[in-house]
Amino acid sequence: MIHSLSLSDVLADHARSRPGVTATVDGELRHTYAELDLRVTRLAAALAGAGVSTGDRVVWLGQNAHAVLELLLACSRLGAVFCPANWRQSPDELRFVLDDLTPAVVVFEPSEATTSLRAAGAGTWLQAGDEYERAVAEAPVREFGPVDDAEPVLALYTAAFAGRPSAALLSSAALVAHATSLLVVRRMEPGFTFLNDGPLFHVGTMMFCLATFQIGGTNVFTPAFDPEEVCRLIDAERVTQAFLFGPMIDAVAKANAGGKYDLSSLRFVSHSAEWDDMITVDDSPWCRSKMGGYGQTEVGGMLTFLGLAEGGAGFAGRPSPLVQVRLLAPDGTEVPAGEVGEICARGKTLFSGYFARPDLNAEKTAYGWHHTGDLGRREPDGTLTFIGPKLRMIKSGAENVYPAEVERALKTHPAVADAAVIGVPDPGWQQAVKAVVALRPDAAGGVTGGVTADDLIEHVRTLLASYKKPRHVTFVDSIPKRGFTPDYDALDAAHGGGGYPGNA
Amino acid sequence: MIHSLSLSDVLADHARSRPGVTATVDGELRHTYAELDLRVTRLAAALAGAGVSTGDRVVWLGQNAHAVLELLLACSRLGAVFCPANWRQSPDELRFVLDDLTPAVVVFEPSEATTSLRAAGAGTWLQAGDEYERAVAEAPVREFGPVDDAEPVLALYTAAFAGRPSAALLSSAALVAHATSLLVVRRMEPGFTFLNDGPLFHVGTMMFCLATFQIGGTNVFTPAFDPEEVCRLIDAERVTQAFLFGPMIDAVAKANAGGKYDLSSLRFVSHSAEWDDMITVDDSPWCRSKMGGYGQTEVGGMLTFLGLAEGGAGFAGRPSPLVQVRLLAPDGTEVPAGEVGEICARGKTLFSGYFARPDLNAEKTAYGWHHTGDLGRREPDGTLTFIGPKLRMIKSGAENVYPAEVERALKTHPAVADAAVIGVPDPGWQQAVKAVVALRPDAAGGVTGGVTADDLIEHVRTLLASYKKPRHVTFVDSIPKRGFTPDYDALDAAHGGGGYPGNA
Repeated sequence: MIHSLSLSDVLADHARSRPGVTATVDGELRHTYAELDLRVTRLAAALAGAGVSTGDRVVWLGQNAHAVLELLLACSRLGAVFCPANWRQSPDELRFVLDDLTPAVVVFEPSEATTSLRAAGAGTWLQAGDEYERAVAEAPVREFGPVDDAEPVLALYTAAFAGRPSAALLSSAALVAHATSLLVVRRMEPGFTFLNDGPLFHVGTMMFCLATFQIGGTNVFTPAFDPEEVCRLIDAERVTQAFLFGPMIDAVAKANAGGKYDLSSLRFVSHSAEWDDMITVDDSPWCRSKMGGYGQTEVGGMLTFLGLAEGGAGFAGRPSPLVQVRLLAPDGTEVPAGEVGEICARGKTLFSGYFARPDLNAEKTAYGWHHTGDLGRREPDGTLTFIGPKLRMIKSGAENVYPAEVERALKTHPAVADAAVIGVPDPGWQQAVKAVVALRPDAAGGVTGGVTADDLIEHVRTLLASYKKPRHVTFVDSIPKRGFTPDYDALDAAHGGGGYPGNA
Repeated sequence: MIHSLSLSDVLADHARSRPGVTATVDGELRHTYAELDLRVTRLAAALAGAGVSTGDRVVWLGQNAHAVLELLLACSRLGAVFCPANWRQSPDELRFVLDDLTPAVVVFEPSEATTSLRAAGAGTWLQAGDEYERAVAEAPVREFGPVDDAEPVLALYTAAFAGRPSAALLSSAALVAHATSLLVVRRMEPGFTFLNDGPLFHVGTMMFCLATFQIGGTNVFTPAFDPEEVCRLIDAERVTQAFLFGPMIDAVAKANAGGKYDLSSLRFVSHSAEWDDMITVDDSPWCRSKMGGYGQTEVGGMLTFLGLAEGGAGFAGRPSPLVQVRLLAPDGTEVPAGEVGEICARGKTLFSGYFARPDLNAEKTAYGWHHTGDLGRREPDGTLTFIGPKLRMIKSGAENVYPAEVERALKTHPAVADAAVIGVPDPGWQQAVKAVVALRPDAAGGVTGGVTADDLIEHVRTLLASYKKPRHVTFVDSIPKRGFTPDYDALDAAHGGGGYPGNA
């Protein structure tokens, strides 16, 4: 175990190396690293007392709180797996999570949903707040042996595959490695204070919580995003960074329009003149380059960083120093630069598969590489461009055509408001490429007006290999969506799609 | 192998992510990452052709060159182990290295020593320069499978144990982790250019070479330190950092006294007004805090960084984010803050033991922790102070007394020029503490003059626990040394030392 470094080990070292540094702030509760270490030891003992042992799951049903980090660390100390569930989900969705994970312990914030779930749920249920604090205070201090850092410790639910979400399992080794890559790109140092105002069930907030923990900084927790409270906490706790983007930044700037709060401790990305005046514009690669890159839960957060490829052609940047990236064809061979392939990865930050999904895990690790399910392209300078989700592939003759790539090309036409691409059965070629296109109102007229199907086919032909251009174009008022992506099942049904190779 | 990331893998990713970036510069030779990757593949094929297979050793006998990095990377691609030997050593010392490692291939720069070693040596000998370049150019391009990053890839000889040096084995995983910790503390980014002017057989230069490689920067090689050539290369290659300290900095500043070269690309520690005017004073934690910390080859380089503990009490700083540190007593228990114990460690950057030293390896990993052989103290704020080498322990009654701690206390007395502490047999206490002291010339007089034995004993008593104070004091003109440390064998022989517990 000499090379192992679990999250529990990191905490044990912080308790010695920075005993008096504030580790967590949550409302009135403030704990130093020495206190956090002791609380986590007691919490681990309480969980063990409730029957949690190696590999067992512990679920949090609630908003952000210091207890989320404590439960993760206590699970690390025990060798158990912690899952902060998405509290925005419906009771049915949460029930799916509980049925899937069969947790030994559920820690919950009271709500209509948790009341009904508790009534039907197995395992030990512990109420957040006073009951949780009492359990921590009353548990004994005992010794826990070292835990292998390659074992999973965190489960985060991700996008639906085959109609159901799956829990990505992240090991301590992956989380520590990913946190360290953020320390590099974000120039995080001791003294860094992170405001956890985004949801901790999502890797976007969790990854910064853990990087802050890794460098021995301070994590401030607030239940959910509230612009005024964000201002107050940045001021009161001298916050270095928060989970903020686009509209959230505007909301915070608006809440502080009169300059009521001092936000100068916040080192963040430049956004608007008003915002830049309130904060300290950050010169780290992370913020200098507009916080770009490509990531997903399964790679621990970010796989590539724009900040490692300033001036590069690809807007997804370059890989983190701790991973390898390859763009692979469906047969596992590498596609040449300039061609679209599936973004695949190996390295220190990668997840350990999905909980209880052996078939999916085998599929995602084909040819010894993690398959992200997303498409990308390597530019001549080596930087990466994210194309879009792979979803389903069209087979036209011997060639593979990815809808996302053709859609991107279509959308560069000034008359196109939105587009989706499907495959339709073709007697000669197995499938033919069909574009379903919504034109901009001012370009209206469709096939009878200014912009014709031939215009769009010609436009794509100038951008992509000829076999990728649509053979058919249909004009519609709008593209049906499932979340942010086209609803391909509905499009196939409405426009004659079918004949796909593989599993679609 | 999805979580593995060998040095060879890092190179393979760089060849794709930054194919046109300059990886190495050595005199007239300049290679991009795409070229370096191809050269390393050919070199690995050439080594394999010469009989090198998994676990075999390859030795470099020469000064700094691009071939050092290439050989390391080729060994990583093959799963072999590379050792850059200390070319400053005598032929007999180099022969010991060759007998110890029994390398399959030796790459050498011609000299009197290598000529005589070659005549007697086994394995394949390849001359650096033209012969090496020809071997690379003529070898085929072939595929190599992935190598487990936990396997050793680099062997660096370190301090003598039991009278002979030992080769510390570092895995790709440890080297990549250590490099990443340097990226954090040194704020290294793409574009970083490192001048390898210190010896690459030493971890102090090698660790920066590898961190520069890890972030996709440029390594410039020069055979050995030459102040004028350092100035020229900083100017010509826009070097970001070089291996420089104290007297080397003065020599470079002197060589550039007239401002002949533009050194402004160098981001480095503040040193003198003259120096600061020539360079860009670095604000990264590494340089801001005067480049301090504690390290050794066996932990991959640095175990602790002063830059992670600014304003702290201990001048060794705080641990790297990727390790744990404990101060342990000889029985494996942790000593409390304020007490001296052996600096012990676990974590991602640690070595994999010494080559062919099973007994020493077992001893160094007692109680599941790597024992550094050095003593330290945890200050109340959690920061660490390095006390000195452990060497041998004195047993006085039930108490353990470390000579280095008592020596440090003695040296704080203004009359003491140098001091060494030994144990002498004692009928009642097993051993008694004996100080051998050299006074400053102006404090001369010894026991008959101004400063008495009792003065020094009383001085130590005010600083340390009473049982640590010397019972006997002997005055000498100078302390015999072995390298930088007292020659305790000579001191024991001259002053009646003996009765040590354990192996001394």
